[in-house]
Amino acid sequence: MSVIYDKIALIGLGLIASSMALAIKRAGLAREITGYARSQQTRDIAREIDLCTVCDTATDAVRDADLVVLCVPVGAMAAVMADIAPALKPGATLSDVGSVKKAVIDAVGPHVPAGVHFVPAHPLAGTEHSGPRAGFAELYDNRWCIIVPADGSDPAAVARLADLWRGMGANVDEMDAEHHDLVLAVTSHTPHLIAYTMVGVADDLSRVTDSEVIKYSAAGFRDFTRIAASDPTMWRDVFLSNKEATLEILGRFTEELFALQRAIRTEDGDHLHDYFTRTRAIRRGIIEAGQDTDAPNFGRAVKPR
Amino acid sequence: MSVIYDKIALIGLGLIASSMALAIKRAGLAREITGYARSQQTRDIAREIDLCTVCDTATDAVRDADLVVLCVPVGAMAAVMADIAPALKPGATLSDVGSVKKAVIDAVGPHVPAGVHFVPAHPLAGTEHSGPRAGFAELYDNRWCIIVPADGSDPAAVARLADLWRGMGANVDEMDAEHHDLVLAVTSHTPHLIAYTMVGVADDLSRVTDSEVIKYSAAGFRDFTRIAASDPTMWRDVFLSNKEATLEILGRFTEELFALQRAIRTEDGDHLHDYFTRTRAIRRGIIEAGQDTDAPNFGRAVKPR
Repeated sequence: MSVIYDKIALIGLGLIASSMALAIKRAGLAREITGYARSQQTRDIAREIDLCTVCDTATDAVRDADLVVLCVPVGAMAAVMADIAPALKPGATLSDVGSVKKAVIDAVGPHVPAGVHFVPAHPLAGTEHSGPRAGFAELYDNRWCIIVPADGSDPAAVARLADLWRGMGANVDEMDAEHHDLVLAVTSHTPHLIAYTMVGVADDLSRVTDSEVIKYSAAGFRDFTRIAASDPTMWRDVFLSNKEATLEILGRFTEELFALQRAIRTEDGDHLHDYFTRTRAIRRGIIEAGQDTDAPNFGRAVKPR
Repeated sequence: MSVIYDKIALIGLGLIASSMALAIKRAGLAREITGYARSQQTRDIAREIDLCTVCDTATDAVRDADLVVLCVPVGAMAAVMADIAPALKPGATLSDVGSVKKAVIDAVGPHVPAGVHFVPAHPLAGTEHSGPRAGFAELYDNRWCIIVPADGSDPAAVARLADLWRGMGANVDEMDAEHHDLVLAVTSHTPHLIAYTMVGVADDLSRVTDSEVIKYSAAGFRDFTRIAASDPTMWRDVFLSNKEATLEILGRFTEELFALQRAIRTEDGDHLHDYFTRTRAIRRGIIEAGQDTDAPNFGRAVKPR
């Protein structure tokens, strides 16, 4: 791999940014990586693990950078952007990794100085862990990164950012912001809300103790707890900023759930059996597309007694 | 390990029974294992992989057995039981592995001949795969098996069955049937119904294609598809036979989901953040209890490009 940007600045140093830094270094895609995080503790950890050149202000980090990537929760992007805008180098590319795109474009777009190319993007990858220590170089391998070029994006800037993501191991797609937000409401945002809800219900139920929920979680529930352990700030911002699409898919979800609930109440076994048969095909598609493992229970290894 | 039963008969040869056969052989817990499955194809596969002594009728399989375990879907248990009852050996123990207990006790109990000890049980373990080839000896290691002694169960028969499950690697708990069904509605049945629903919604949505759902599944959705790939017949029977508890927990779930939906609509970020923070603690408990791995994304390995 060859160098794609001389200097890349990562604003925010959580799981996504730290994995980017490691993936960029793995393939030698930049000569220099700078980084900034609002919290002193996060900056200290990033320095300790030698993630990148850690700066004490965002302005210092972005100075002379050829690519600046906003890796902060969606709700924090406008403020960060207002802060760094004056320091951006003319001709630089500005991108982000936010899980919603329309709200980010609306919040960040107005602050982008003339001569800076704004190319929003979203890598569909993550884990339930947070912070700079959670990052690993392989996070983006064979995952998808969706690039959502803003109106009038420079095609050369878009192509260069796509090359960077491919260099980090990802597959790249392009999509418009509205469609991105709907697709993600289906494949990510609504599933997360549902998982949080189910875990909350289990925690609340006074006739079933927490210790029972924990001991007997292997029957299905534990899968939900992984998702429901994701970063609370990030997810709060996702739901607030992809409100319309999430509410729409939630509406579809409850409609469907009520139909199944009715089938249980009326003991319509055929309806249930047909429904449960149909959903197997999607799983098969995901495995054939290399987006998940076929190993039982994800091949998870649990520590022996 | 020493022999606990001379002869064990497994009726039904799916994932659960085949894993039992392998775990019993691993630890030498029986001198002989017989098995029966209704479908000729399943019996052929079980013979081909040399799982146990496969019989062509259930009656042949249970003759002289010291322990008979019903490993068929809950809805099929009454008919199987009526069939084998006359062939059960006096003094034998009869058990099952059904995911609901009250309905099984109601269906099976009346057919149990005098002198046969009925000890219902439920191992909380499984995968998304089905059939005799899906079994593996380690399935029950460090998982919980809940024994639900029927009224007047012989304590010696209960203790012996518990020894068998421990010999297969499991931890053993006792519980009454009603509480079991409520706990499982929380930790298993409702999560499965929700996962099936979410996958069904994604499959239905005409503005988001199946190929998009599959490609972009790594953002959270793929976890749901694993659960929603579980055996349709088994799950139909679970919902029909644990109707009351499932409907109760579903009611709690939708109540809670509507509260979160309202918080999104009214943009109540604090409510969302508090909720999402609380659920992290449960995940931590599950990992500390050795019921799941702390490796990111369950440590799943997905084939590289």
